Amino acid sequence: MDANFELTREYIDQIKESIQLQDEAKAVSLMEELHSADIADIYDELNIEEAKFLYLLLESEKAADVLVELEEDDRERFLKALPSEVIAKQFITEMDSDDAADVIGEMSDEQKEEVLSHIDDLEQAGDIVDLLNYDEDSAGGLMAKEYVSVQENWDVEHCINEIRQQAEEVEEIYFVYVVDDDSKLKGIISLKELLLNSSKSKIANFTDTDIISVKTDEEAEEVGNIMDKYDLVAIPVVDSIGRLVGRITIDDVVDVIREEAEKDYQLISGITSDVESSDKVIQLTRARLPWLIIGLAGGIVGASVIGAFEGEINIYPKLAFFIPLIAAMGGNVGIQSSSIIVQGLANNTLGLESTGRKLLKELSVGLMNGIICAALIFGYNFFFDDSIALTTTVSISLFIVIVFASFFGTFIPLILERVKIDPALATGPFITTMNDILGLLLYLMIGKIIFTHYAGII
Amino acid sequence: MDANFELTREYIDQIKESIQLQDEAKAVSLMEELHSADIADIYDELNIEEAKFLYLLLESEKAADVLVELEEDDRERFLKALPSEVIAKQFITEMDSDDAADVIGEMSDEQKEEVLSHIDDLEQAGDIVDLLNYDEDSAGGLMAKEYVSVQENWDVEHCINEIRQQAEEVEEIYFVYVVDDDSKLKGIISLKELLLNSSKSKIANFTDTDIISVKTDEEAEEVGNIMDKYDLVAIPVVDSIGRLVGRITIDDVVDVIREEAEKDYQLISGITSDVESSDKVIQLTRARLPWLIIGLAGGIVGASVIGAFEGEINIYPKLAFFIPLIAAMGGNVGIQSSSIIVQGLANNTLGLESTGRKLLKELSVGLMNGIICAALIFGYNFFFDDSIALTTTVSISLFIVIVFASFFGTFIPLILERVKIDPALATGPFITTMNDILGLLLYLMIGKIIFTHYAGII
Repeated sequence: MDANFELTREYIDQIKESIQLQDEAKAVSLMEELHSADIADIYDELNIEEAKFLYLLLESEKAADVLVELEEDDRERFLKALPSEVIAKQFITEMDSDDAADVIGEMSDEQKEEVLSHIDDLEQAGDIVDLLNYDEDSAGGLMAKEYVSVQENWDVEHCINEIRQQAEEVEEIYFVYVVDDDSKLKGIISLKELLLNSSKSKIANFTDTDIISVKTDEEAEEVGNIMDKYDLVAIPVVDSIGRLVGRITIDDVVDVIREEAEKDYQLISGITSDVESSDKVIQLTRARLPWLIIGLAGGIVGASVIGAFEGEINIYPKLAFFIPLIAAMGGNVGIQSSSIIVQGLANNTLGLESTGRKLLKELSVGLMNGIICAALIFGYNFFFDDSIALTTTVSISLFIVIVFASFFGTFIPLILERVKIDPALATGPFITTMNDILGLLLYLMIGKIIFTHYAGII
Repeated sequence: MDANFELTREYIDQIKESIQLQDEAKAVSLMEELHSADIADIYDELNIEEAKFLYLLLESEKAADVLVELEEDDRERFLKALPSEVIAKQFITEMDSDDAADVIGEMSDEQKEEVLSHIDDLEQAGDIVDLLNYDEDSAGGLMAKEYVSVQENWDVEHCINEIRQQAEEVEEIYFVYVVDDDSKLKGIISLKELLLNSSKSKIANFTDTDIISVKTDEEAEEVGNIMDKYDLVAIPVVDSIGRLVGRITIDDVVDVIREEAEKDYQLISGITSDVESSDKVIQLTRARLPWLIIGLAGGIVGASVIGAFEGEINIYPKLAFFIPLIAAMGGNVGIQSSSIIVQGLANNTLGLESTGRKLLKELSVGLMNGIICAALIFGYNFFFDDSIALTTTVSISLFIVIVFASFFGTFIPLILERVKIDPALATGPFITTMNDILGLLLYLMIGKIIFTHYAGII
């Protein structure tokens, strides 16, 4: 396998040429050195017919790996194009149970049943059905059934024999799990210990009984936090009474961590679904339209708010000048506050402060930022603008808007979290637009009061 | 170790009480069961004197682990409070070379030299000095010197003896690296293979020679992409002529992936430095002020832009109503476009399209979104507003603003990437504010033209 393979336009052209000429030997030799993840990348650049031609040239094991590595929508098209029996007998049998469950989980109920009925190894079929029962965002949904477990009263030799028997099935082994007669998880042994202890020594002597494990219903995101915090490459999964039922490896968790981060990032940038720049124009448009429409609706409400103060603006047109400033600052402050809370919730770094204290702290931050910004805009307007009424209006309302937005920005994600809604929604378009409008309303109301009552005096 | 330990207010109160009473026995028993990462969490809730009391009760190895797990600013305060000799002899000696280099790398030059001079193990000191030479955001900066390497002509028994010798030093072993006489990396053996092959068999028979490795100067983010893509738990690091110089484990890379994601998230949410909600008010304020000031400056420019069209607004005050809508939409579209590119660059998922094609595609997305949004606002204004001039102005300028912002949002991060500046800056305050202002300017210019020339007619 070529380690530092980089996908180039030339390579794709060569592959496409070999497909066009139906030159199987050349296509095979071009792909021979590649890792399945790289082959999956190639497929992104081909149409479905071209991809199918290449796919059927691969050995079963490689083909199964490539199928797992494909993007979800590519895989879906592929699976629709292949008969269930081929999927089951050639590809699913070659997969680890967690990958098999993921692939089958994406199918229609009908295809799912068909594929399952064609799996010859009943134990594997059983494992897959078990895994399909778990929520895909839970530890149960992430775990695989391929692990090596040994009994606590065994010796090293016995363990090694057990590993030898299971070695075919379990590709990567980093740890061996020790269980009692009831399958309850008792401890962990690293392969290093097995290698360094004599074959007759009892494993109980060097079993590590300080186990960090997760329950099947633990949230995937939390599994990621735990493995990250304790620097684990694999974690055992137990059921509600402590029986070992699976293990999760770090590579699956890295994907979870990435996806969670991307989801939050896309939400804050106003994109609704999982799109990439290489997706089609129609997908990209569809992913972006919802926020734009919410923003549009917000803009229309904003226009009505300003419309309600048309009289004031007619008399003091300069009031309109600072509308974008106030609206933008309200939105910005709200997003700043929310995003800190959202990140804290995601990483478990909020600390032990009570909600009351958090709000109080955020209020302090808002007050400080509010005072500084209000002072800056007051200073600017004082020197460069002649209307003290306008200067006062802008400064006071900016201050109030910053404090309000800080408060709401902190409050809303905390409330969402408490009622079990994804707090990251607080950074999304709806709340942001609301903050904009609220800022606008406050500004114009304060302006109306100041101009009506004090314009003559100040 | 209590696996599912959860830090509670009650626990902290107990710890604090034991510190106040100077009850060492109680404090030790409270911490006895805890993982070093949990002890580091406790320190977040204590003042420096309390933390020091606890810290000096820990055994050297645990204390070293805790030091590594501490947040950077907490660690800095700690290290300043301890004599260099204690740091070197009690803590650094217990650390892996990568952690030791990270800790020492944070010190002042003076303290750095002092600590290094107090390390008794000259090989360790040499390793640390070597590691300090690498950029901390490169593979060299991430790697550790603790790995087991064996010669290609050895047998299994010889390898196991080598592992036994190095086992004390290398805590976690997943792979053994095979090198030739010149230390060039030739292959990888998993511990599973060593365990399952007979002690006299030559390792060459089962060495995996398809190696994925990185060079010392590879960017940390790219190391993360490679390990994620190929599902690796450890990756060997080689120098420019292929000699094995270190290895990187996945736990360090998970931290890199997290930090990169957080950095981009904080940038898009307008926060400048690495803050958490548990930080002090002054830190939180300072992290948020820069964007607010840029936003403020943008608002002032925006006010001048509107001021330049004061005459038009005096005549047609309704022109002011849609100012927030146009400004917000420009900003939103720009961020949407940029964020897709920024994510694509970070994950290496941009695909093989040329820059020209990407811009063309983005232009198509902008055109589609622009047409839809312009049609919606035209429909709304047509039914609910009496001025066709205003309706036309808002629709046309919204369309143009969306197309422009799409284009700039794509173009700017690609340009930044090309000139080796972090493309994520395109999602930051400066570009966003510029987009707002540009939108405003276009709107008012179009408004001026339409109202001046056609107001009487349409």
